[in-house]
Amino acid sequence: MDTLDTFVDAPLRDVRRDLHAHPEAGWKEFRTTALLADALDELGYDVLLGTETVDPDERMGVPPTDDVAAARERARDEGAPEEYLEAMDDITGVIATRTFGDGPVIGLRTDIDALSLQEAMDDDHRPAREGFASGHPGEMHACGHDAHAAIGLGVAREFAENGFDGTLKLFFQSAEEGGRGGKPMAESGHLDDVDHLLAVHVGLDEPTGTVLSSYDAPLANAKIDVTFDGEPAHAGREPNAGRNALQAATAAIGNLYGIARHRDERTRINVGRVSADNAQNVICEEATMRVEVRGGTHDANEYMLGRAREVIDGAATMHDVDYETSLYGKTTTFENDDAVTERVEAAASATDAVDEIVRKEFGGSEDASYLIRHVQEQGGTATYLGIGASNPAGHHTAYFDIDETAIDIGVDVIVDTIELLT
Amino acid sequence: MDTLDTFVDAPLRDVRRDLHAHPEAGWKEFRTTALLADALDELGYDVLLGTETVDPDERMGVPPTDDVAAARERARDEGAPEEYLEAMDDITGVIATRTFGDGPVIGLRTDIDALSLQEAMDDDHRPAREGFASGHPGEMHACGHDAHAAIGLGVAREFAENGFDGTLKLFFQSAEEGGRGGKPMAESGHLDDVDHLLAVHVGLDEPTGTVLSSYDAPLANAKIDVTFDGEPAHAGREPNAGRNALQAATAAIGNLYGIARHRDERTRINVGRVSADNAQNVICEEATMRVEVRGGTHDANEYMLGRAREVIDGAATMHDVDYETSLYGKTTTFENDDAVTERVEAAASATDAVDEIVRKEFGGSEDASYLIRHVQEQGGTATYLGIGASNPAGHHTAYFDIDETAIDIGVDVIVDTIELLT
Amino acid sequence: MDTLDTFVDAPLRDVRRDLHAHPEAGWKEFRTTALLADALDELGYDVLLGTETVDPDERMGVPPTDDVAAARERARDEGAPEEYLEAMDDITGVIATRTFGDGPVIGLRTDIDALSLQEAMDDDHRPAREGFASGHPGEMHACGHDAHAAIGLGVAREFAENGFDGTLKLFFQSAEEGGRGGKPMAESGHLDDVDHLLAVHVGLDEPTGTVLSSYDAPLANAKIDVTFDGEPAHAGREPNAGRNALQAATAAIGNLYGIARHRDERTRINVGRVSADNAQNVICEEATMRVEVRGGTHDANEYMLGRAREVIDGAATMHDVDYETSLYGKTTTFENDDAVTERVEAAASATDAVDEIVRKEFGGSEDASYLIRHVQEQGGTATYLGIGASNPAGHHTAYFDIDETAIDIGVDVIVDTIELLT
Amino acid sequence: MDTLDTFVDAPLRDVRRDLHAHPEAGWKEFRTTALLADALDELGYDVLLGTETVDPDERMGVPPTDDVAAARERARDEGAPEEYLEAMDDITGVIATRTFGDGPVIGLRTDIDALSLQEAMDDDHRPAREGFASGHPGEMHACGHDAHAAIGLGVAREFAENGFDGTLKLFFQSAEEGGRGGKPMAESGHLDDVDHLLAVHVGLDEPTGTVLSSYDAPLANAKIDVTFDGEPAHAGREPNAGRNALQAATAAIGNLYGIARHRDERTRINVGRVSADNAQNVICEEATMRVEVRGGTHDANEYMLGRAREVIDGAATMHDVDYETSLYGKTTTFENDDAVTERVEAAASATDAVDEIVRKEFGGSEDASYLIRHVQEQGGTATYLGIGASNPAGHHTAYFDIDETAIDIGVDVIVDTIELLT
Repeated sequence: MDTLDTFVDAPLRDVRRDLHAHPEAGWKEFRTTALLADALDELGYDVLLGTETVDPDERMGVPPTDDVAAARERARDEGAPEEYLEAMDDITGVIATRTFGDGPVIGLRTDIDALSLQEAMDDDHRPAREGFASGHPGEMHACGHDAHAAIGLGVAREFAENGFDGTLKLFFQSAEEGGRGGKPMAESGHLDDVDHLLAVHVGLDEPTGTVLSSYDAPLANAKIDVTFDGEPAHAGREPNAGRNALQAATAAIGNLYGIARHRDERTRINVGRVSADNAQNVICEEATMRVEVRGGTHDANEYMLGRAREVIDGAATMHDVDYETSLYGKTTTFENDDAVTERVEAAASATDAVDEIVRKEFGGSEDASYLIRHVQEQGGTATYLGIGASNPAGHHTAYFDIDETAIDIGVDVIVDTIELLT
Repeated sequence: MDTLDTFVDAPLRDVRRDLHAHPEAGWKEFRTTALLADALDELGYDVLLGTETVDPDERMGVPPTDDVAAARERARDEGAPEEYLEAMDDITGVIATRTFGDGPVIGLRTDIDALSLQEAMDDDHRPAREGFASGHPGEMHACGHDAHAAIGLGVAREFAENGFDGTLKLFFQSAEEGGRGGKPMAESGHLDDVDHLLAVHVGLDEPTGTVLSSYDAPLANAKIDVTFDGEPAHAGREPNAGRNALQAATAAIGNLYGIARHRDERTRINVGRVSADNAQNVICEEATMRVEVRGGTHDANEYMLGRAREVIDGAATMHDVDYETSLYGKTTTFENDDAVTERVEAAASATDAVDEIVRKEFGGSEDASYLIRHVQEQGGTATYLGIGASNPAGHHTAYFDIDETAIDIGVDVIVDTIELLT
Repeated sequence: MDTLDTFVDAPLRDVRRDLHAHPEAGWKEFRTTALLADALDELGYDVLLGTETVDPDERMGVPPTDDVAAARERARDEGAPEEYLEAMDDITGVIATRTFGDGPVIGLRTDIDALSLQEAMDDDHRPAREGFASGHPGEMHACGHDAHAAIGLGVAREFAENGFDGTLKLFFQSAEEGGRGGKPMAESGHLDDVDHLLAVHVGLDEPTGTVLSSYDAPLANAKIDVTFDGEPAHAGREPNAGRNALQAATAAIGNLYGIARHRDERTRINVGRVSADNAQNVICEEATMRVEVRGGTHDANEYMLGRAREVIDGAATMHDVDYETSLYGKTTTFENDDAVTERVEAAASATDAVDEIVRKEFGGSEDASYLIRHVQEQGGTATYLGIGASNPAGHHTAYFDIDETAIDIGVDVIVDTIELLT
Repeated sequence: MDTLDTFVDAPLRDVRRDLHAHPEAGWKEFRTTALLADALDELGYDVLLGTETVDPDERMGVPPTDDVAAARERARDEGAPEEYLEAMDDITGVIATRTFGDGPVIGLRTDIDALSLQEAMDDDHRPAREGFASGHPGEMHACGHDAHAAIGLGVAREFAENGFDGTLKLFFQSAEEGGRGGKPMAESGHLDDVDHLLAVHVGLDEPTGTVLSSYDAPLANAKIDVTFDGEPAHAGREPNAGRNALQAATAAIGNLYGIARHRDERTRINVGRVSADNAQNVICEEATMRVEVRGGTHDANEYMLGRAREVIDGAATMHDVDYETSLYGKTTTFENDDAVTERVEAAASATDAVDEIVRKEFGGSEDASYLIRHVQEQGGTATYLGIGASNPAGHHTAYFDIDETAIDIGVDVIVDTIELLT
């Protein structure tokens, strides 16, 4: 396929394919942001970029500066308009607002980041077969955020053309994967006046034609990166001279899994990654690990996180090593509002391509949770909805793809829901 | 056998058997102390008791007050002279001094405590067969300290009768088992003027007729008692409400054994005892353990002790529990002085009953180490010697016994050595 | 109070107090069983004892033979009729049956064992103040099973006097504490023809006047005792010669707590007791522990138990020690039948002393589960109900007591329910 | 510097520098082997290559086939003579033999491999400053094996020119780092007739002018690579579906460090590397680690290795995962023969450039141990000697270098020693 120069009037399927071919992982969505901003600008929206879109202090899991810079240069090379790149100030994501009438302020949150995952490149995989597979080795839109961006753009176009009695605010959020971008955008200040918020996800192992009018109650989670720093020593000559970071990590991991689970709520803990790398005869001076906790409520999650921190602290004390932790990402829980969910159901019922409407609970986590709770805490209402898209392989796998007819269904259901909310 | 009323003129074999029949474990040697003090008094020695024999603040592993009081009453019931019991002030052990001439001050350290161990009571065991087995259930002279006391008394008698050109100081020490009584006696002040110190042990798996002219280089050790205190909770209803003392103990033990051993010296660690006791469905609020570390040098032992404390501290932090540690006992290392060892060898050579003289290293630990080092640090010299006694079963076992002819050999070798030291 | 010679016509309050004063822990309920059997016999019931009441191979957590024999002798000394003691064959518990009419077979299960717990003996505690506190040190009716036995007897008397159109089967079950006696009684064969089963508990932190018409969905659980057997060694002299049972237990415990909890169900694990007992300088040759797992379903519990066994097996392999496990107790889950629950509610509504009727879920476990499931699997129906009794202190604590008016309420509600079930 | 086409007549310093510039890590020494073989051939030696130099089944820690193939191609590109490359059959190392007289067979073992380490490239480092630093990123002669090869070549030349009354066998051994190449060469059959064996090392933190006439008693060691294989699962959605390889590795590491150390000998254990790499929310299906054990004797090392295998096996059982171990490398211990050591001392005394002769013990390990023991077991004698070389930075560091005058000293001492051995 041809790379697009502008998203303003391209078919949404082409926009999705262009994004699929140019996936950008969290906090690196420079081309995606710039092309969306350019189109939204042209569609008459007020466009906010960079530090205006987030509380910068709340950003989590930001990649090393060099990686971000390289991603920006890549975006420039791949046609991202320079003026928008400059306005971003190295922070990706867009907020676009346009007032069409005196009615309520309606927000729509769509996430735009790709995963750090190598896409399948064989002919069993349609993006490969039809020429729009990822051109970025090790990055892939394997969770449908390319379609989310297209849907957000489609909604923007629809109202730019037809208007409605209210104000539309579009939140194109960075770095949903890992739960890194939701909290900073939620605390940007721009959610404060939102009366009703919609968030949308495609796929979710539901067939095209099914709409999840309420996708509800995710687990709260927190991910922390831990580095233990000790002292190396020759394990044969003077083992006592070392301070063994690997023993600290080992003690931590063994005891992290043993944290007492919470009485009434699902609670989880996992260590997904650990690394210490020396010759066999060197006592490890450094060991790193990535830990994740979850809880069925915000409090249960905080309980697990607090206990995990105690275990890590104690493990370092045990083996006389230093340590640092950093929050890689964090999400919270939410409950959808029936008032909004019912509007989604009404809108979906009125959509020809929809043949089933269901409500479902999350098994995992979502950082739209921060935006939703922020709106609800201000007195607004919100719902997270799903658009079935007959995904042929699971989310976060190399063969993930979607039935693209779901894009138009998503636009239709959302546009109708928004109109019903005014 | 008949219980003795006084030790002053009884055959040493009978003294040993009387003590064997009335074993008193560490810090409970009231009858032993009183009868020795009485005899030494009568033999013309200045006798020190109670707080004069130790630095009370340095006493370790003292049993609960009730147990000590019960032991004192038992001693009274078994004929311990009241005036000496009173003078003791609940602290066992005797220091006895007598000046016979202007020559050097010679010290002799003998330990007097029994073990907390049930003696064998069948006819395969001579003390049972011949009627002098322990009359105190759960206590036994299974390490020959009964013979040590008899030897010390024999040496006292010998010089009381014949004199020598110097001063004799006899240190009948409490609570050697566990390493609890050596340090407090070493810091009593009464070792300060000792020019030459001898310490003696019988048995040591050497046959009668063998003298160890130097029994050398014990491991330093330290024993600590640890109690973790958490919060109980119903493990089914609200596991998260507990603070699990057993998890803390478990984390500690697993990591204590993993402490990096020291480069050049033998280092050891062991947990000999652990206890937590609840119903299966209660999260343990208390767990206790007894830990021992050792090192081939004082520094290596301190290294192990310091690391053990870090591990224990970290384990408590990990599981959010409190903890207390107390030092149950401690010993250090020493090297015998050739000057003294050679005098022992000369004395042993001149003793008819001695047919072999050897030097050997300790495998274990000894709190005479504190007395020996104290003398050496003040400029004196010292040697720890052994008297073979054909013990039919290992030390610290229910069938331990000694060939009692070793008592006279011990007295002879020590008396001759002391004369050679003047 | 006076000890009763017979239960046949004593006020139920006195029966309860007599049992409270003579508490017998699981598999030791000789006096309780004999006196109940005697009374039921006299009331015209067919009485089954000993091996007829259980599948003997399924008995779990039976105390050592000497303890059982001592309990039997104590019962004899305290007036248990000899003929019933003999018929028991050292297995406690009674099944009593009487047919009054052609209607359904109705079962009533009441458990009769006390806890191994020292009762409070001060005047703040009514049983002490009024003279019916436990006369058996270390045993106490701290869970109301004394009242359960009285209620069962009361129901037996009621129908013996007034009859009903059916058959009554009374299951006075041993050893509910620990979940040891339910499975063997469930597999006795005598539940096979039961059409409707009731099980009853008093207290449950509900005030007198409240009836729990359904106390539902306990956690399944399993308790296992584990002994690790290694080799002792002197920790200073030759640590490598030992096989360390404590290290195995430690490795097991640390990893037991880390078993991945089950996806959809509450799952629990706890180690309530651990013991290893040596001198500090001896590598432990034996370590024991008591483990409990629970699951919200039978399968979730089996998952935990299976994983626990793997961890224990691996821990023994790690440290080259042998091990044995034995099942101390086991329970399963159940769901009450609405048909029965509704009859309980109708009966309770008709009882003047009842002012509130509620349904509640268990937090813990119950081995009536095996009896209930057995009846349900045969096509019968069942409900576990609760009778509020204003207990002034928590179950399983030294100050537990009940408002004895709950006994009559219990009898009334059960009798009425049974009549409604015909 | 210019790359050499042939080593046959180049100054030894240039040979060393050429090798330094073309470092080849273990089992990849294609260019080194080919150029040495070419020179030795021309000097009249019988040259053995490939499977003739080792027992192929004993080779340990061989890199992946692709890496070996790439190393061979690189050697070809860098001027390794094709005929020798072909003869190697992908196995590096040379054995070269020439008989000059009827006297004894004298062996000389020199190792030729580089380390996997990035060399310093700044001007503080002479090889960088003078243009002979490594041209192979990530490989470096940081242990002086480049000089060893040069010394071996120098000895070969000396005798090719002047002869001596005996047979010279040169063992240019691969893969000493990690202890991977010694055992296979020791079992090649070509050590069987060696009467006296010399092995040599330069540097060792001794200044130029010092000769270690005996570098003795290394620790035996063994390195094992372990991979645990479980099953991944989503840690939030169904943790119970996983089989957690990281928990197995963690349990193993914690308990490996806790293996009881051996009574009389130095024993060591270390885990130098561990890796598990998933997203935070995925239960790790694979974890790898590298373990090393050491012992002051062969038996003590075997004890540690055996215990380590038990711990690993038990850890896998605990967490229901599979595992594989492979031996990455192994060394044993040896004691030098005084007869040879004294000849080295005589030779060194006669060498002008030598001003100090000392004997020293290893702190680490060496796989020349297998060659030395093999010769000794056949009735021969052997010594491992050291040539001081004023190394400005420690072995195995990025700034390691040697004073090249040590090369000629090495050749002189070895040549003289060999003559003294005839």
